[in-house]
Amino acid sequence: MKTVEIMIEGMHCGGCVQRAGEALRKVSGVETRKVEIGKATVDLEQGREAAAVEALERIGFDARIAQA
Amino acid sequence: MKTVEIMIEGMHCGGCVQRAGEALRKVSGVETRKVEIGKATVDLEQGREAAAVEALERIGFDARIAQA
Repeated sequence: MKTVEIMIEGMHCGGCVQRAGEALRKVSGVETRKVEIGKATVDLEQGREAAAVEALERIGFDARIAQA
Repeated sequence: MKTVEIMIEGMHCGGCVQRAGEALRKVSGVETRKVEIGKATVDLEQGREAAAVEALERIGFDARIAQA
Protein backbone atom coordinates (compact mmCIF):
# COMPACT_ATOMS: atom_id res chain seq x y z
CA MET A 1 0.00 0.00 0.00
CA LYS A 2 1.08 3.54 -0.65
CA THR A 3 -0.71 6.74 0.24
CA VAL A 4 -1.44 9.09 -2.63
CA GLU A 5 -3.47 12.19 -3.21
CA ILE A 6 -5.90 12.34 -6.08
CA MET A 7 -6.70 15.82 -7.36
CA ILE A 8 -10.33 16.04 -8.42
CA GLU A 9 -11.81 18.79 -10.60
CA GLY A 10 -15.42 19.88 -10.38
CA MET A 11 -16.18 19.23 -6.71
CA HIS A 12 -17.96 22.12 -5.03
CA CYS A 13 -20.28 20.78 -2.33
CA GLY A 14 -20.95 18.08 0.21
CA GLY A 15 -22.89 16.08 -2.37
CA CYS A 16 -19.80 15.98 -4.58
CA VAL A 17 -17.70 14.84 -1.62
CA GLN A 18 -20.19 12.12 -0.75
CA ARG A 19 -20.46 10.72 -4.26
CA ALA A 20 -16.71 10.81 -4.85
CA GLY A 21 -16.21 8.90 -1.60
CA GLU A 22 -18.85 6.33 -2.49
CA ALA A 23 -17.26 5.75 -5.89
CA LEU A 24 -13.78 5.32 -4.40
CA ARG A 25 -14.98 2.99 -1.64
CA LYS A 26 -16.29 0.55 -4.26
CA VAL A 27 -12.86 0.08 -5.84
CA SER A 28 -10.90 -2.97 -4.73
CA GLY A 29 -7.32 -2.28 -3.76
CA VAL A 30 -8.19 1.31 -2.85
CA GLU A 31 -8.67 2.33 0.77
CA THR A 32 -10.14 5.78 1.14
CA ARG A 33 -8.65 7.82 3.98
CA LYS A 34 -10.13 11.25 3.35
CA VAL A 35 -12.28 12.97 0.76
CA GLU A 36 -12.58 16.75 0.66
CA ILE A 37 -13.48 19.29 -1.98
CA GLY A 38 -10.94 18.96 -4.78
CA LYS A 39 -8.94 16.12 -3.30
CA ALA A 40 -9.01 12.58 -1.99
CA THR A 41 -6.34 10.83 0.03
CA VAL A 42 -6.25 7.09 -0.50
CA ASP A 43 -4.08 4.07 0.19
CA LEU A 44 -3.48 2.14 -3.01
CA GLU A 45 -2.39 -1.39 -3.60
CA GLN A 46 0.18 -1.67 -6.36
CA GLY A 47 -1.18 -0.84 -9.81
CA ARG A 48 -4.56 0.50 -8.64
CA GLU A 49 -3.93 4.13 -9.60
CA ALA A 50 -5.90 3.90 -12.84
CA ALA A 51 -8.83 2.11 -11.19
CA ALA A 52 -9.12 4.85 -8.59
CA VAL A 53 -8.97 7.63 -11.19
CA GLU A 54 -11.44 5.83 -13.46
CA ALA A 55 -13.97 5.40 -10.64
CA LEU A 56 -14.05 9.19 -10.27
CA GLU A 57 -14.15 9.85 -13.99
CA ARG A 58 -17.04 7.42 -14.40
CA ILE A 59 -19.18 9.66 -12.19
CA GLY A 60 -18.15 12.79 -14.09
CA PHE A 61 -15.11 14.18 -12.31
CA ASP A 62 -11.72 14.90 -13.86
CA ALA A 63 -9.16 13.25 -11.63
CA ARG A 64 -5.43 12.66 -11.55
CA ILE A 65 -2.90 11.25 -9.13
CA ALA A 66 -1.02 14.13 -7.53
CA GLN A 67 1.85 12.27 -5.92
CA ALA A 68 3.10 8.71 -5.99
CA MET B 1 -42.18 12.18 -26.62
CA LYS B 2 -43.59 13.30 -23.32
CA THR B 3 -42.18 15.88 -20.95
CA VAL B 4 -41.52 14.71 -17.41
CA GLU B 5 -39.79 16.02 -14.35
CA ILE B 6 -37.21 13.90 -12.59
CA MET B 7 -36.71 14.68 -8.92
CA ILE B 8 -33.05 14.27 -7.97
CA GLU B 9 -31.75 13.97 -4.41
CA GLY B 10 -28.28 15.09 -3.38
CA MET B 11 -27.68 17.95 -5.81
CA HIS B 12 -26.30 21.05 -4.12
CA CYS B 13 -24.01 22.90 -6.53
CA GLY B 14 -23.21 23.74 -10.10
CA GLY B 15 -20.94 20.72 -10.35
CA CYS B 16 -23.87 18.47 -9.48
CA VAL B 17 -26.01 20.19 -12.12
CA GLN B 18 -23.32 19.80 -14.73
CA ARG B 19 -22.71 16.12 -14.07
CA ALA B 20 -26.41 15.27 -13.92
CA GLY B 21 -26.89 17.01 -17.27
CA GLU B 22 -23.95 15.20 -18.83
CA ALA B 23 -25.29 11.85 -17.65
CA LEU B 24 -28.79 12.53 -19.01
CA ARG B 25 -27.54 13.81 -22.35
CA LYS B 26 -25.82 10.48 -22.99
CA VAL B 27 -29.08 8.52 -22.76
CA SER B 28 -30.78 7.70 -26.05
CA GLY B 29 -34.46 8.51 -26.16
CA VAL B 30 -34.02 11.22 -23.55
CA GLU B 31 -33.85 14.88 -24.53
CA THR B 32 -32.76 17.12 -21.70
CA ARG B 33 -34.62 20.42 -21.53
CA LYS B 34 -33.47 21.80 -18.20
CA VAL B 35 -31.35 20.70 -15.25
CA GLU B 36 -31.44 22.58 -11.97
CA ILE B 37 -30.63 21.73 -8.37
CA GLY B 38 -32.96 18.92 -7.34
CA LYS B 39 -34.75 18.53 -10.65
CA ALA B 40 -34.40 17.82 -14.35
CA THR B 41 -36.99 18.38 -17.03
CA VAL B 42 -36.66 15.98 -19.95
CA ASP B 43 -38.56 14.82 -23.01
CA LEU B 44 -38.77 11.04 -23.03
CA GLU B 45 -39.47 8.60 -25.79
CA GLN B 46 -41.81 5.84 -24.73
CA GLY B 47 -40.36 3.47 -22.15
CA ARG B 48 -37.22 5.51 -21.42
CA GLU B 49 -38.15 6.48 -17.87
CA ALA B 50 -35.98 3.80 -16.27
CA ALA B 51 -32.99 4.60 -18.49
CA ALA B 52 -33.12 8.24 -17.49
CA VAL B 53 -33.39 7.44 -13.78
CA GLU B 54 -30.62 4.84 -13.98
CA ALA B 55 -28.24 7.28 -15.67
CA LEU B 56 -28.55 9.54 -12.63
CA GLU B 57 -28.30 6.71 -10.13
CA ARG B 58 -25.18 5.42 -11.83
CA ILE B 59 -23.41 8.68 -10.95
CA GLY B 60 -24.63 8.55 -7.36
CA PHE B 61 -27.90 10.49 -7.25
CA ASP B 62 -31.24 9.19 -6.03
CA ALA B 63 -33.76 9.96 -8.74
CA ARG B 64 -37.41 9.34 -9.50
CA ILE B 65 -39.91 10.43 -12.11
CA ALA B 66 -42.18 13.07 -10.60
CA GLN B 67 -44.93 13.21 -13.18
CA ALA B 68 -45.80 11.24 -16.29
